[in-house]
Order: sequence, then C-alpha cells, then structure tokens
Amino acid sequence: MSLHDAYDPDNVFARILRGELPSVRVWEDDEVLVFLDVFPQSEGHMLVISKTSRARNILDIEPDVLARLSHAAQRAAKAAVKALGCDGVTLMQFNGATAGQTVFHLHFHVIPRWADRDLKGHGQAPMADAAALEPVAEVLRAAF
Amino acid sequence: MSLHDAYDPDNVFARILRGELPSVRVWEDDEVLVFLDVFPQSEGHMLVISKTSRARNILDIEPDVLARLSHAAQRAAKAAVKALGCDGVTLMQFNGATAGQTVFHLHFHVIPRWADRDLKGHGQAPMADAAALEPVAEVLRAAF
Repeated sequence: MSLHDAYDPDNVFARILRGELPSVRVWEDDEVLVFLDVFPQSEGHMLVISKTSRARNILDIEPDVLARLSHAAQRAAKAAVKALGCDGVTLMQFNGATAGQTVFHLHFHVIPRWADRDLKGHGQAPMADAAALEPVAEVLRAAF
Repeated sequence: MSLHDAYDPDNVFARILRGELPSVRVWEDDEVLVFLDVFPQSEGHMLVISKTSRARNILDIEPDVLARLSHAAQRAAKAAVKALGCDGVTLMQFNGATAGQTVFHLHFHVIPRWADRDLKGHGQAPMADAAALEPVAEVLRAAF
C-alpha cells in the first residue's frame, strides 16, 4: 500500500467498526473508538480510530476528525497513567507501509511505558487473545 | 524528569522560542512553530511545538492547543510528501523520560520515511549543523 492508494472498506478496523470482527473496546463516543491492540507492545497498548472517517492516513484525515482523535489520545494517555501507573506514554502514528503502517485506516497508538520494562517492537509482539486483554481493559475503562 | 515535574522555563525549546538558541524554522503562525530536529532521524525530520503553552506533555496540554499542533503536524506531513517525495511519514510524541522524551516541552516528531533508507534511532542520530539543514528546510518551506 502506498500513501495514495484508495481506502479499502474491508480493512481490519473497518470490519471491527461494523462488528464483523471482535475487539476489546475501552472507550467510545459517536466519532471515536479506543480499543486494545491485539499485538500489544506493552500492557494497555491502545488504538484510537475514527468511527466515521474513511481516512487512510494523516494526508487525508479531515482536520476536525484529527482534532477529536488527538483529544481521545490525550484521554487514553491520562487513563493509562491513572489506571496503570505507567512512568511514560508513547504516541505513534504511522503513515504508509514504509513507515510501518499495517492497517490502512488512520490510527494512533497510545503505548504505556515503564522504566523497568522493555517495549516490544511494532509488529513483533505476539497476538493476545481477548480474554487475556480483558482485565487491563476493565481497569482502563474505569479511568476514562 | 517524571511525568509530573514542573515545567522548566529554561528547556531547550523554550530557549529557542525566546530566540536564545538558534533553530532552523520551517513554518510558524501565532501559536505553532515547526522547525528541524538537529538530531534528524531522517532527512526533513521536523518538530512541531506550541509557542504559547507551557505543557510538558500530553497530560497537561490544553485541548485547543493540542488540536492546533495536530493540524500543524498534518501540514508538515503533507509538506514532506510534496517536497521530499517520501514514501511514508511517522509521527511520534514521547511523554516522560521513560518514553524517550528528552526536552520537556510537548512536541510532535514528523519523520519522513523512504523504503530504501533506514531510520536512525531516536537520540542516536549525530547532531547536524544549521547550514547543513538549510537546503531541506528551504524545500519544505516552499511546500507548506
């Protein structure tokens, strides 16, 4: 996928939004969904996506949607610090396969960090099942 | 520096904003400054900061300022693609020393990516001098 290919309506996040694939949801409103990455680089690794935009990346996201996503990422970061007591938070947002993007529906990664824990590489973490993610999701939900 | 320490008014970016330290500026308005990272992880590596906020990180940034920073990061990404022809763009935003933050004035990294070039590690790139960065800055300025 290049930066300029068309939006694929059957990408994984579009299917999650349509309820065709499961997800461990943490917070949502009419515009934004925050859910857990099933390839978590750390405990509580969240993804922030638009429910309405068909933007693939930062080049084509509507500015008002981008603002709402940034606010949800801020809420997610605050929830991580409050709920998990992490020492730091890394935000990442990849555009284009060259940059490491694997799902072509714009998303922010919100990754809790701890001084005494290594970060797993993007795309290198093992897949977690939903049941294993549920306890951290529950703690995060209460902190949003 | 923990996530919760006070803002240091003598941090490097505050000093750049006061004109006490040099910077290679690419774009600015009343609120936002985009300039080149002197430790570039790739060609055209930009930093996006607020000129008015004393936010250290994502926990304490004012939501309206965060929205404007996200819009400036989008403009920077578009300028990179247009001016430099990169294949991808990585956005990163680090909160807390644990997450890799080294200057405690909130900033977004906007990093152009190319399929055939490796990304230098954050904090591992050699320092570039302003004269060496000026040509890419000039090309980016024209694309904003």
